[in-house]
Amino acid sequence: MSRVYNFSAGPAAIPDPVLDRIRHDIPDWQGLGMSVMEISHRSKEFIAVAEQAEQDLRELLAVPDDYSVLFPQGGATLQFAMVPLNLSAEGQTVDYVQTGSWSKKAIAEASRFCKVNIAADSSDENFTYVPDEDGWRRSEDAAYLHICGNETIAGVEYPFIPDTGDTPLVSDMSSTILSRPLDVSRFGIIYAGAQKNIGPAGITLVIVRKDLLGKARSLTPSLLDYAVYDQSGSMSNTPPVFTWYVAGLVFEYLKDAGGLVAIAEVNERKAKKLYAAIDASSFYSNPVREDCRSWMNVPFVLSDAALDAKFLDEAAAAGLANLEGHRSVGGMRASIYNAMPEAGIDALIGFMQEFERSHA
Amino acid sequence: MSRVYNFSAGPAAIPDPVLDRIRHDIPDWQGLGMSVMEISHRSKEFIAVAEQAEQDLRELLAVPDDYSVLFPQGGATLQFAMVPLNLSAEGQTVDYVQTGSWSKKAIAEASRFCKVNIAADSSDENFTYVPDEDGWRRSEDAAYLHICGNETIAGVEYPFIPDTGDTPLVSDMSSTILSRPLDVSRFGIIYAGAQKNIGPAGITLVIVRKDLLGKARSLTPSLLDYAVYDQSGSMSNTPPVFTWYVAGLVFEYLKDAGGLVAIAEVNERKAKKLYAAIDASSFYSNPVREDCRSWMNVPFVLSDAALDAKFLDEAAAAGLANLEGHRSVGGMRASIYNAMPEAGIDALIGFMQEFERSHA
Repeated sequence: MSRVYNFSAGPAAIPDPVLDRIRHDIPDWQGLGMSVMEISHRSKEFIAVAEQAEQDLRELLAVPDDYSVLFPQGGATLQFAMVPLNLSAEGQTVDYVQTGSWSKKAIAEASRFCKVNIAADSSDENFTYVPDEDGWRRSEDAAYLHICGNETIAGVEYPFIPDTGDTPLVSDMSSTILSRPLDVSRFGIIYAGAQKNIGPAGITLVIVRKDLLGKARSLTPSLLDYAVYDQSGSMSNTPPVFTWYVAGLVFEYLKDAGGLVAIAEVNERKAKKLYAAIDASSFYSNPVREDCRSWMNVPFVLSDAALDAKFLDEAAAAGLANLEGHRSVGGMRASIYNAMPEAGIDALIGFMQEFERSHA
Repeated sequence: MSRVYNFSAGPAAIPDPVLDRIRHDIPDWQGLGMSVMEISHRSKEFIAVAEQAEQDLRELLAVPDDYSVLFPQGGATLQFAMVPLNLSAEGQTVDYVQTGSWSKKAIAEASRFCKVNIAADSSDENFTYVPDEDGWRRSEDAAYLHICGNETIAGVEYPFIPDTGDTPLVSDMSSTILSRPLDVSRFGIIYAGAQKNIGPAGITLVIVRKDLLGKARSLTPSLLDYAVYDQSGSMSNTPPVFTWYVAGLVFEYLKDAGGLVAIAEVNERKAKKLYAAIDASSFYSNPVREDCRSWMNVPFVLSDAALDAKFLDEAAAAGLANLEGHRSVGGMRASIYNAMPEAGIDALIGFMQEFERSHA
């Protein structure tokens, strides 16, 4: 089979030109007679890769100079522990906003290390919106406030950046990072697992304001201390060189595509088109409040769930892969990250309309 | 340039057939129309990869049924923290044997969480041997005893498995794992970073006796708790799918090559040949006690260090790459893991003899 349109929520599609480049570079990268998988992270060739990746990422997101860019392992899930261990003292209060499955997981892990105050919660309407900032019940003395910028499972994205004043704002942006420009200066820490818009699973992007470094609890394992990454260029131990290199190729690809302003235009068009098709139909529906609908993850249900399996089978046969919703919620989900071309959205909409005509 | 003989200590060479297979599988793996980098870890196709990798690894090392095989991230360095956090109580005594740079690093991290007793130490002779077991000063009540089975930098390998009785024996085998058969039943925990004999950096192999699971300290981050990996098939969070898949290809390659008995024969021949060439010369030397010489990492120095740069330049020009010793010790080091063919050793020896003739 040739390449399909891959709607996987993550690990997700990687741009075709990046895959072509990976193939080209194996087995002989840069004329060195070896692949990038087989090279020391301390070689000048790899250090150049790492430096270029950071520079490109900084350029894409306009990361201010007083922020460090780190590349630990462990994905967003390890950040659920690293954030409280680095920013709070034992028993200190921290604020979390609960908007879905991923913020719930972050809260569960943080609760082991801190006193978590749920400042706002949208479980009353099945996590289909982001609570308005006015109503948040923030603590006086929270070490930080944590949000999940985009809930991958329910497809809910923040339509605003909360104003937390002097309290550092921390955001899990795993499934929205690099999808549009972002005012990094509003955040204390931004983190993201790679496997949506950055590259293969196995590396994590952390952007941290430098004044928040060096505050880890005394018994924090070294590899869970942001300062260790900051001081070593994320090379205090052997980093995942291949994964880092692919992330660098993705950053280069995004720059070549015109940067995040251009990427955001396409992403907005893709998302609006798909939501419009869902809303125009009585066969498909998406329950998320309109201003909070994610540009990256578009869940939808069929009016007759008995047709789900048939929908998925026929979609797969039409080259539209991985449309099944998360196992915790069922239904469908189209994850349409940067690597999903607009033609993939058009193909999906065409298929959905045809399926509705045949089965509604 | 075509493929070179790559003597990198790690990330190290990967067998050519494995690289060919990786190239073949991008961009269309198993006819799915996507690469393995782009597929959910919860897909049946990837779960089959993970299960096969575990089964092949179990077969290669004859892992007994009362051991779990785990694949965390973070490399051996994260294990330096995970071992004490999972096996010891705060302030409890643990025994470590210090035979070089890597055991020193393990000790430094463990000392943050436990009372470390150095049961034996070969720093008196610049880490060129493993102290005889008779003289070890073990604690009565150590939670475990930790060794580094092969010191990658000085090229020192244990010629025996210590008998620790009821005290669990823990070994960092990053640079010796899969180089020869191993009696796993003698260990409580074996761990290894992937980037020598397993695959690309970014995944870790942990083999743990099941009775040692579930004892992590209460404030251990979830992703540092062995039990979490055991209960979830190492998928409590998104694992590095591509890296795991490559590790599986390497295991398959080793099985096809006849398993570890066959691999060990080749490795022994490669190492003996290289040490013999060094010993036969008065121009090259290796300081390690003969019975402790590593099969995987062969450090050597030139009698005139002023020729080091010339040696490295000419070696590289002859297609013999990455022979520079570790920055902490200088000199040369040939890392000759499983992926280094015997022809590479022959080429290196030929080059060394020719260089000696021209420059001695």
